[in-house]
Order: sequence, then structure tokens, then C-alpha cells
Amino acid sequence: MSKRVAVLLSGCGVMDGSEIHEAVFIVLALDQAGAKYQCCAPDQLQAEVVNHLKHEPVKEQRNVLVEAARIARGKIVPLSEIRAADYDAILLPGGYGAAKNLCNYASAGTGSRVDPEVARVLQEFHQAGKPIGSMCISPVVVAGALAEVDPKVTLTIGNDQKTAADIATLGGQHQDCPVTDFVVDTKNKIVTSPAYMYNAGPAQVYEGISKAVRATLELA
Amino acid sequence: MSKRVAVLLSGCGVMDGSEIHEAVFIVLALDQAGAKYQCCAPDQLQAEVVNHLKHEPVKEQRNVLVEAARIARGKIVPLSEIRAADYDAILLPGGYGAAKNLCNYASAGTGSRVDPEVARVLQEFHQAGKPIGSMCISPVVVAGALAEVDPKVTLTIGNDQKTAADIATLGGQHQDCPVTDFVVDTKNKIVTSPAYMYNAGPAQVYEGISKAVRATLELA
Repeated sequence: MSKRVAVLLSGCGVMDGSEIHEAVFIVLALDQAGAKYQCCAPDQLQAEVVNHLKHEPVKEQRNVLVEAARIARGKIVPLSEIRAADYDAILLPGGYGAAKNLCNYASAGTGSRVDPEVARVLQEFHQAGKPIGSMCISPVVVAGALAEVDPKVTLTIGNDQKTAADIATLGGQHQDCPVTDFVVDTKNKIVTSPAYMYNAGPAQVYEGISKAVRATLELA
Repeated sequence: MSKRVAVLLSGCGVMDGSEIHEAVFIVLALDQAGAKYQCCAPDQLQAEVVNHLKHEPVKEQRNVLVEAARIARGKIVPLSEIRAADYDAILLPGGYGAAKNLCNYASAGTGSRVDPEVARVLQEFHQAGKPIGSMCISPVVVAGALAEVDPKVTLTIGNDQKTAADIATLGGQHQDCPVTDFVVDTKNKIVTSPAYMYNAGPAQVYEGISKAVRATLELA
């Protein structure tokens, strides 16, 4: 039987939502491995909307779920409908949406709080012994969500020392990792890959993400 | 030397802009092949904005270039700055944006007119003997743009008979093709792959697009 995987999106676009390439590479790697996936996202307003041409915030309101539906080609459900019991694993791409809409790390740093629904879902997967795969900056969400229940998960966000230190403060243990590779916390079934935390090209990011997706499926 | 390729986007999202997976697969395949790419898009309002969750148009205005910048991670230029002399090839993903923003095929059918700037750029590449790669529904743009200068290019949009007949009326010759393959008009250097014209998964769409991208680069 095909494995079933939830993909947790945070909007559509690196500066205010899910990093698009990373999200697409995740669903590509899942489909290549014969897994079935269901995209989901919180049904709430984005923390902000950023003009990606001018790289500056604009006075506009967009909904995280509605924008994430662009990446999902319309096939998406609200995060509130996700139960770990229905899936074998969950995967998160990065993008500032992870740090703005799934938690508030982008504005609050180590004082970051994870959205309660996001925390509920990630804790459910963790407590059910089901793997969590997390790319780019999204390990700040995973570290924050699991800190209450298990503050010793090992994660990577690449080699940025400030963010790595923040991961430790938020309740994780950081391990450096190159863009084309990934880190596995076997005991806790957490798989992480740095992706666009590096100034890399799509081919290298895809290499790291596809390896991490396969590793996540192997733990499921 | 690396080949330089322009990637012509039409927004961000299958229902009113560029099909996101197709656009990302194009830049992935280009990077994997060692080519350099420059994303571009018309600096104009979208024909419409579609809520991808509810699958219905909304009263909102968005700019094609600004939204396409989400796929391009901010690295994008207006189409008006693109000169064929600076590139070795041009590639177009599909999505309704190709049929709504680059031409008006979605509303006008065989009476479709291609945006003058889009026609200028595609005709420049064609007249310079430089290859054009076109995915999904975007061959309606290529057929329309080249009809004035060369009405005998061979293209595929998969196997949809209505759209195939429209391609012929617009000024191209249609050839059926499965999702994992592509069609080459060697004389005219036009490479096409059906992508999400089929109800396929990301892995099959990526297979067809990556083959088509490599074939386009070989003609450059």
C-alpha cells in the first residue's frame, strides 16, 4: 500500500508563505517514491503580504490556505482537518511563511510561539511515532512545537550560526549540514534538510530535499 | 560556456497564472543541465484573479510580473527587457495564465490574439533560429505568435482533440503526445510537452518537462 503523507504549507511565496520550489520538490519526490500526499494549511490570514518583485511588504490581506491552494493545484484541506491517525508522515517546506504564519519566529526570534493548531498536529505525529520531515527554516516550527513534549530533537537549518543557536534556545539540538544532504534524528523520527537556507540553485536544493523525503518515508 | 535561457512566466498559480509545478520543473531541469536562466513576465494586470481553494474568480487585481516573482524568488525582469540576442533559448510553462495573460485564448478561443510584447519576443527567438520550448497549454501562445511569420510549426498539447483542432486554426500543426514525452519540430526548433494537459502526477509531468528542456538545450 502507498504511504500517505500530509504536506503542511504556509502560503505561496518565499517571502510571506511557503518556499515554492521546496514545496514542489517535496510533492515531486513523494510522487516519484509512489507515496500519496495531501496538502494542508492553516485557514487564517497571512502575517503579511510581501511584493516579491520589490521585496517589500504591501498593505493587502491574503489567506494562508487560499494562497497555498495555488501550490496544491486546488487540492488542499484546512490544517484543522488533519489527524495523524490518517497519515504515515508529515512534511514541511520552508519559506518565511513557516516563520511568520506557522509560528512567529520571524518577528519574535527565540520568544517565538507556534500556532496552536500547528503544534497540535506536529505533537500528534510525534506522539504516534510517525516521522516529521522539515526543510529550510521550518525546523524552528518543529523545535518549538515539540519542545513542550520532547526538548531533545536533533535538527539542521544548514550552517547559519545565529539560527542554529536559536534552534537550541527554542528546544532542539542543531547539527550542521550541507545543502545536498539531510540530518536524521532516528529516535525521534525527525528528518531535516537545509534547502534554500543556503544560496544554492534548484538542482542542489532538489537533491537534498529528495533524499530527505526518501529518508522520511523509510521511517514511516 | 553555460547556455542562457529566458523563462517566460504569466503569474503564479494554475488557474490565473503560470502552472507552478511546471515552472519549477523547468528551472530545476535547466539548473540540472548546467544552464543559466532568467525569469521574465509582462508587467501588466492579470486578466483575472482566481481563488484556487474555491476555484472561482474574485474581485481583486494582481500584477503578472509581481506574482510571477514569487516563483522566481524575486529574481525576475519585465518581458520588455528581454532581447533574443542575449539568450540561447526561451521556455514557457503552461497554466491558464498563458491563455489569459500572454494571449486571450481562454476567452476568445480561435479568435485569440497574442499580447504584442509576447509576440515580439517569440518572433525574435524564432527569427534568430533560437529554440522555443513550450509546455502544457502554452503552445497556443507560440502557435498564435508565430502564425504571422511561419504558420507551419508542429506542436503538441497532449491529446485533447478540441484544443488540438484550435491549434491548427491558430496556425500550427498538432501532434498527439503522452505526458512523459515531448514533440520536436527540428526545422523550426520548437519543443513541446503536454505536462498538466493530462490529469497526471508531478513525477510524470517532471519526466516530460525535463526531457523537453534537455531537447531545447540541445537545439540551442
